[in-house]
Amino acid sequence: MAMPVLVVGSIVLDTIRSPFGTSDEGLGGSALYFAGAAAPYGEVRLVGVVGDDFPAEGRAFLEERGVDLRGLTTLPGRTFRYVAEYGDDMQDRTTISTCLNVFEHFHPRLPEAYAGTPVIFLGNIAPALQIEVLDQIENPVHVAADTMNFWIDGAPEDLRKMLSRIDTLFLNDGEAKELTGEKNMIAAARAITGLGPSTVIVKKGEHGALLFHGGEFFAVPAYPLDAVVDPTGAGDSFAGGVIGSLAAGGDFDGGSFRRAMLHGTAVASFVVEQFGPAPLSGLSLDAIKERTAVLERMTTIG
Amino acid sequence: MAMPVLVVGSIVLDTIRSPFGTSDEGLGGSALYFAGAAAPYGEVRLVGVVGDDFPAEGRAFLEERGVDLRGLTTLPGRTFRYVAEYGDDMQDRTTISTCLNVFEHFHPRLPEAYAGTPVIFLGNIAPALQIEVLDQIENPVHVAADTMNFWIDGAPEDLRKMLSRIDTLFLNDGEAKELTGEKNMIAAARAITGLGPSTVIVKKGEHGALLFHGGEFFAVPAYPLDAVVDPTGAGDSFAGGVIGSLAAGGDFDGGSFRRAMLHGTAVASFVVEQFGPAPLSGLSLDAIKERTAVLERMTTIG
Repeated sequence: MAMPVLVVGSIVLDTIRSPFGTSDEGLGGSALYFAGAAAPYGEVRLVGVVGDDFPAEGRAFLEERGVDLRGLTTLPGRTFRYVAEYGDDMQDRTTISTCLNVFEHFHPRLPEAYAGTPVIFLGNIAPALQIEVLDQIENPVHVAADTMNFWIDGAPEDLRKMLSRIDTLFLNDGEAKELTGEKNMIAAARAITGLGPSTVIVKKGEHGALLFHGGEFFAVPAYPLDAVVDPTGAGDSFAGGVIGSLAAGGDFDGGSFRRAMLHGTAVASFVVEQFGPAPLSGLSLDAIKERTAVLERMTTIG
Repeated sequence: MAMPVLVVGSIVLDTIRSPFGTSDEGLGGSALYFAGAAAPYGEVRLVGVVGDDFPAEGRAFLEERGVDLRGLTTLPGRTFRYVAEYGDDMQDRTTISTCLNVFEHFHPRLPEAYAGTPVIFLGNIAPALQIEVLDQIENPVHVAADTMNFWIDGAPEDLRKMLSRIDTLFLNDGEAKELTGEKNMIAAARAITGLGPSTVIVKKGEHGALLFHGGEFFAVPAYPLDAVVDPTGAGDSFAGGVIGSLAAGGDFDGGSFRRAMLHGTAVASFVVEQFGPAPLSGLSLDAIKERTAVLERMTTIG
């Protein structure tokens, strides 16, 4: 029933400035947030690369959550560094610098034991690398991926190939429109299913998220927070909660996806309340379910 | 049980350019859209002003829906004209021109028969005029109002006075933040209840709407349309559906507000599919309920 999940993505030291403060070289990256968010649901296998300067607490953060790190490579050199800033409304992030460092020449090599992993999440990295991972996987049950405008513009052919091989695509509303050329979010989500994925999940920040699955739309609002301190990692944590809860149930039908959307939203809501992935340490399923209950109540009449 | 609704607001001849075409001096204005949207639910009384150039089909549009026009004044001169343009994404409207004409010196005078109207909607006009209407009403059961950034900036004191006298405020997310100085939509909605209204309804266009009532949030997605042709009047039609359905039930509790949010969303979805208010002509409760059922399904698990 419960299925292991493999994630490939970046592991980064993030420097983030927001109106609420600054975080200096904190843990980050799509694989790290996803793994931390999916870990409460079951087994997570991580594929990524760090430099020999990666702090011991980074590895400890993942190990404490039981994440399988056999796929984590350490190379001589510096870990991926990212510096960004949020404006007053916490919606738009301005990238100050991106230093790929050891990630620059990363090619994912999966431990043999990972080849049969049933559920795959391809974090937001070059589509060519996402394809390299799929080439090393045997008959996955479900493949999900995340992408962004950088690849929509910069690697459209690789992206098309990747899309033709996945089941579920995560992206934000602007990216959905850019990928399809549609001006309308609903039309864009529908159009993406023509590119390969049967399921599309549109992330909308403070406006929640939209699922398109089996010809139907499902909308979940953002969890109501009076303050968002640092939105970094929210999208990957959301995906971790969605895919983690789907894998735990072992079903990928409409009802499972709908429930999973609430889980992803709840998990992400913990992450944005503080700088960095710290809220994922020790996050329990009970705490998550308290918030999915609030979300359900937020869309239920009477 | 079912309660009459009074609306005061603008009646306008709108010229709208969108990527889908142009509408030249079509029927518009907050009072006209609201009245058309609320009419399927019961008795609507309109207070407004038009010039002697107001076309016969404008009056016919309202009369066919059974709107009580004893409060509609015709003055010598031209009707309010508005010209605006939508960009590609249909989210941002650029105002080209606003000619108030006969509306410039408008002071609402209510027919005596309107004084006891139990449910009041103060459309988006100067807060001082909204207050003038309230001064002519005896013991209303429920008062709702709409406002916009123009008054938040330009008439903050009148706006405060108006807010202290109403039960429900409609506004969009940017306006909620501007009114309260909060950067966060949730914090902003909460803060507005400190200014008077016990209920706050935040309109978010393609992202749906958010209700804050009785200490709880309720979220409704936008109705999933593949194309929005003209968003003009969507907010007022939404308010018409919300207030119309509340007045029809005669209850203003949480469950009634939640159901009403679906009705407002459904009604507005018909309006944005075409230029102008034509979709409201002959719109039936059955057609509305088909869409509220879709919206309910869009937020229901399993």
